[in-house]
Amino acid sequence: MTIGIYGRQFNNSVIPYVQQVLDCLVEYDDLEVLVYESFFEFIKDKLYFPKQFGTFNSHVELKNNVDVMISLGGDGTMLDTVTLVRDSGVPMIGINFGRLGFLASVNKEGIKSALNTLVNRQYSLDVRRLLKVETESNLFGELNFALNDFTIHKRDNSAMMLTHCYLDGEFLNSYWADGLIVATPTGSTAYSLSCGGPIMFPRSGNFVITPISPHNLNVRPVILSDAHVLTFEVESRSSKYITTCDSRTEVIDSNISLTVKRADFDINLIRLNNESYLSTLRNKLLWGIDTRNY
Amino acid sequence: MTIGIYGRQFNNSVIPYVQQVLDCLVEYDDLEVLVYESFFEFIKDKLYFPKQFGTFNSHVELKNNVDVMISLGGDGTMLDTVTLVRDSGVPMIGINFGRLGFLASVNKEGIKSALNTLVNRQYSLDVRRLLKVETESNLFGELNFALNDFTIHKRDNSAMMLTHCYLDGEFLNSYWADGLIVATPTGSTAYSLSCGGPIMFPRSGNFVITPISPHNLNVRPVILSDAHVLTFEVESRSSKYITTCDSRTEVIDSNISLTVKRADFDINLIRLNNESYLSTLRNKLLWGIDTRNY
Amino acid sequence: MTIGIYGRQFNNSVIPYVQQVLDCLVEYDDLEVLVYESFFEFIKDKLYFPKQFGTFNSHVELKNNVDVMISLGGDGTMLDTVTLVRDSGVPMIGINFGRLGFLASVNKEGIKSALNTLVNRQYSLDVRRLLKVETESNLFGELNFALNDFTIHKRDNSAMMLTHCYLDGEFLNSYWADGLIVATPTGSTAYSLSCGGPIMFPRSGNFVITPISPHNLNVRPVILSDAHVLTFEVESRSSKYITTCDSRTEVIDSNISLTVKRADFDINLIRLNNESYLSTLRNKLLWGIDTRNY
Amino acid sequence: MTIGIYGRQFNNSVIPYVQQVLDCLVEYDDLEVLVYESFFEFIKDKLYFPKQFGTFNSHVELKNNVDVMISLGGDGTMLDTVTLVRDSGVPMIGINFGRLGFLASVNKEGIKSALNTLVNRQYSLDVRRLLKVETESNLFGELNFALNDFTIHKRDNSAMMLTHCYLDGEFLNSYWADGLIVATPTGSTAYSLSCGGPIMFPRSGNFVITPISPHNLNVRPVILSDAHVLTFEVESRSSKYITTCDSRTEVIDSNISLTVKRADFDINLIRLNNESYLSTLRNKLLWGIDTRNY
Repeated sequence: MTIGIYGRQFNNSVIPYVQQVLDCLVEYDDLEVLVYESFFEFIKDKLYFPKQFGTFNSHVELKNNVDVMISLGGDGTMLDTVTLVRDSGVPMIGINFGRLGFLASVNKEGIKSALNTLVNRQYSLDVRRLLKVETESNLFGELNFALNDFTIHKRDNSAMMLTHCYLDGEFLNSYWADGLIVATPTGSTAYSLSCGGPIMFPRSGNFVITPISPHNLNVRPVILSDAHVLTFEVESRSSKYITTCDSRTEVIDSNISLTVKRADFDINLIRLNNESYLSTLRNKLLWGIDTRNY
Repeated sequence: MTIGIYGRQFNNSVIPYVQQVLDCLVEYDDLEVLVYESFFEFIKDKLYFPKQFGTFNSHVELKNNVDVMISLGGDGTMLDTVTLVRDSGVPMIGINFGRLGFLASVNKEGIKSALNTLVNRQYSLDVRRLLKVETESNLFGELNFALNDFTIHKRDNSAMMLTHCYLDGEFLNSYWADGLIVATPTGSTAYSLSCGGPIMFPRSGNFVITPISPHNLNVRPVILSDAHVLTFEVESRSSKYITTCDSRTEVIDSNISLTVKRADFDINLIRLNNESYLSTLRNKLLWGIDTRNY
Repeated sequence: MTIGIYGRQFNNSVIPYVQQVLDCLVEYDDLEVLVYESFFEFIKDKLYFPKQFGTFNSHVELKNNVDVMISLGGDGTMLDTVTLVRDSGVPMIGINFGRLGFLASVNKEGIKSALNTLVNRQYSLDVRRLLKVETESNLFGELNFALNDFTIHKRDNSAMMLTHCYLDGEFLNSYWADGLIVATPTGSTAYSLSCGGPIMFPRSGNFVITPISPHNLNVRPVILSDAHVLTFEVESRSSKYITTCDSRTEVIDSNISLTVKRADFDINLIRLNNESYLSTLRNKLLWGIDTRNY
Repeated sequence: MTIGIYGRQFNNSVIPYVQQVLDCLVEYDDLEVLVYESFFEFIKDKLYFPKQFGTFNSHVELKNNVDVMISLGGDGTMLDTVTLVRDSGVPMIGINFGRLGFLASVNKEGIKSALNTLVNRQYSLDVRRLLKVETESNLFGELNFALNDFTIHKRDNSAMMLTHCYLDGEFLNSYWADGLIVATPTGSTAYSLSCGGPIMFPRSGNFVITPISPHNLNVRPVILSDAHVLTFEVESRSSKYITTCDSRTEVIDSNISLTVKRADFDINLIRLNNESYLSTLRNKLLWGIDTRNY
């Protein structure tokens, strides 16, 4: 088994936990470890390497060599890792050194046990669908997909924007708002939830369109099958606005038409055998400990 | 072609429109008309019958004899009609004498043209999924299905209730609230929308669980595939609470466990060729005419 | 100083704490204690009385004899106590044997210290405004005031109701909804909050009108000075509906006009010197411990 | 009577209506007209001036010479006019060439009649309170007041921000959000309403704190007396964020403390005798024409 490791730069408090990951991994004989090169450069003088690890540098190298990806960090780091994993089908798991995430579900106290479970392949795959954004200008290049969400947003200081939305080519609605979110079920518990969107369960097969600070009081989040194709056209008083694919941002002109549909590939999240989406959900949203007056 | 007609009692202002329906139908040679018996009793002295119509009296008679059902009235009358149509597969259409409904989509100005389109079979079928409620005590009898929604609600004067919800047997959450709604996509624009639920498009294949006046501030509507099975258990300070299946109501004890899942049959709504779900939605929700300060 | 005590019936787990209250109170020489008679009947065989306590039986007896009222129980018990205190100006405090309330702010671990602070008059008064309801038929009799809220609600099984609302005699809006709440600042963190109302700080001098499950998507809670007079008229498809004043309920006919305005008296909550409304608010609403993905 | 006129640049379709304003004003003998200089430069070659108008150039000139201000345009233009009127007490009115505004309440069909009513002083004053922002660095200079709202917002591409809020120096809450709004009653129907805030009536004497896309699910808009002083401190992952006072924007560092309180002056809106805040509200929010399924 070859394990790939991705991480962002971190501060010193996290060093012992990353060291623990390395120490655990070298205990397995048949295990090869490849570290993402720029992350390797960051850690190579900070950590002790019990044996030599290789590196990898791109999606292609990952696809050809890695069996399982480990993301070291929170949900944001998981989204980065997705940009390397892409359509490879390589399953991925996140080890979280801070608070538990929705995506990065192994906490720092459970590193050893989680890695053991992982190496022994005692896990199931939690298949998550992605969306992709298509434009004439090939916006976001090869990284035009999102595990969480695609957003359109007015720029700083701009007035709100008017966005026309079409569903399979048929007019749906024109939104006066600060922006719009199209979220996958995975993304429904991220920014969309802050903007009043519902929680969508991972296997619901849907998108949600959630307006951001809508001017019209009678719009509501809309749920629709991810078999549909959405198109957006923006009329902005300023000529530019912002789009995002997960954490990637592009500033674009208001005369561009954007198409959002289901991506051609899914991501395989590793779900260790003692984990549950429902318990993560309850934990993250503080369900069960609200104490208002009863 | 045999057309079945269902209606509720109506006031005199509606007579000319019902008369027009009858007058139009007799103009087609090969058309037989069967009127639901109790409705026939209500209209027989109020209207002129150009020729003799038969009657039908039950779901079984409808299933064996009717090719297309016409519901005379609004969305509530459509829900009544569903209790006759059930699993027969007989397509149904609603003629609305008041404002347009989500379900009853032919207005009184368009009766003649709609009937002509209908008789010439120039329509498509808009397949809508239902939910059903299962209990040991066979609550709601044969009518334990809903096109719109199933609800649990505290009774008048009662304190709020605590409802435990399970998803395929796994604990999801305990809701302190006045009640809970499980809505189909069709029902998402009815009571669930009033309680903060999102709009779900007809073919999204999902349920939404929407709490009614929830005490806990961090709960949100939850969207999940209708392939799941939901179970509810109620702890109420009073021993009784109310459940509904569409417009049917039962008062039950708090020691009953209720299971909600997708019904075994769908309903075929007739969608005439010039109709669109999206335009109905925009029209009903006043999208496009909000005039706040821009 | 004469202390009045009010309580509801309680279960045995609470006995030691009520006993502790009694034990503490007899330690002060100049303190007389009067217990509400029906509560005295409930506790007299359950507790040990270190010395003889008197009783009182009515608002008038309270007004003439009591200097400080102690409510034993949660926020609901506090609302009961308000019906005895009324316009007497007698300050009141709640000792809560369960979770802390918004109103009943002394917890069972702090009984001794709180009573000492109380007897030594080391407190300030937190003046809370009430509303009152006026009808021709003298609905709610002498108890037509509310510290929390006044509500109008459809009955079980009824369709939603149409309520016309007037502000100082001028038409404000007609609400299609399950009901309406008029809440004081104190009540803004109770039922109104569950129905989407904002938090109003105690001294804001306002009412909020919060619709319950409104059918119209473009209505919002409305905040207005409590110097205004509100009038409500109901058109209900059924002829009856429910009104409440705090926890008191009346079923009435839909042809009654109801007027809601500020009550003629305020209630003085005792705020011990180490207490803070803001910390209660944060604690009750779980502010500061939300852990979603950051 | 001296009338001051302020306007922004407009497109040609509006010319006849501005001409009509001028034509009407010259018909009154004792009326002097002063036009804001930069607006005069914009219109002087576009319009016919029946007699010579003077100009004014600043708040001071307005304060010393103008009796009544007319704002030509929508609510945004009214906010501009407020920056000239400031603490002068000069009453102001808005003539709106597009859709009616909340503030600019005379429509283009009613120009003649409105001006006649105005000149004959058949109006009452609708006194609106403002807020002001105080910082060490004198942010917003002399224009540190707002009729609508003060906002703090993360910048484009930034992660959400953590804002600590204090009430009269006591800690209230820390908000994880895209931003925060402090709105006056006047501003409660503007951006705050889009972000889920309630409607506050003009004379309610309150502020509302409304979070923008809050990460924490259990925060809610907070209403508090405008006698309170609010202080905000920002922790932003990026070092800069955006603040606004009505339509004025400043980018600032996250180490600045901002204080928000009631401004020292009010604005007098002219309310012609046939106008009503309640009818404006119903009209702008589409109350009374929602047609969902009843």
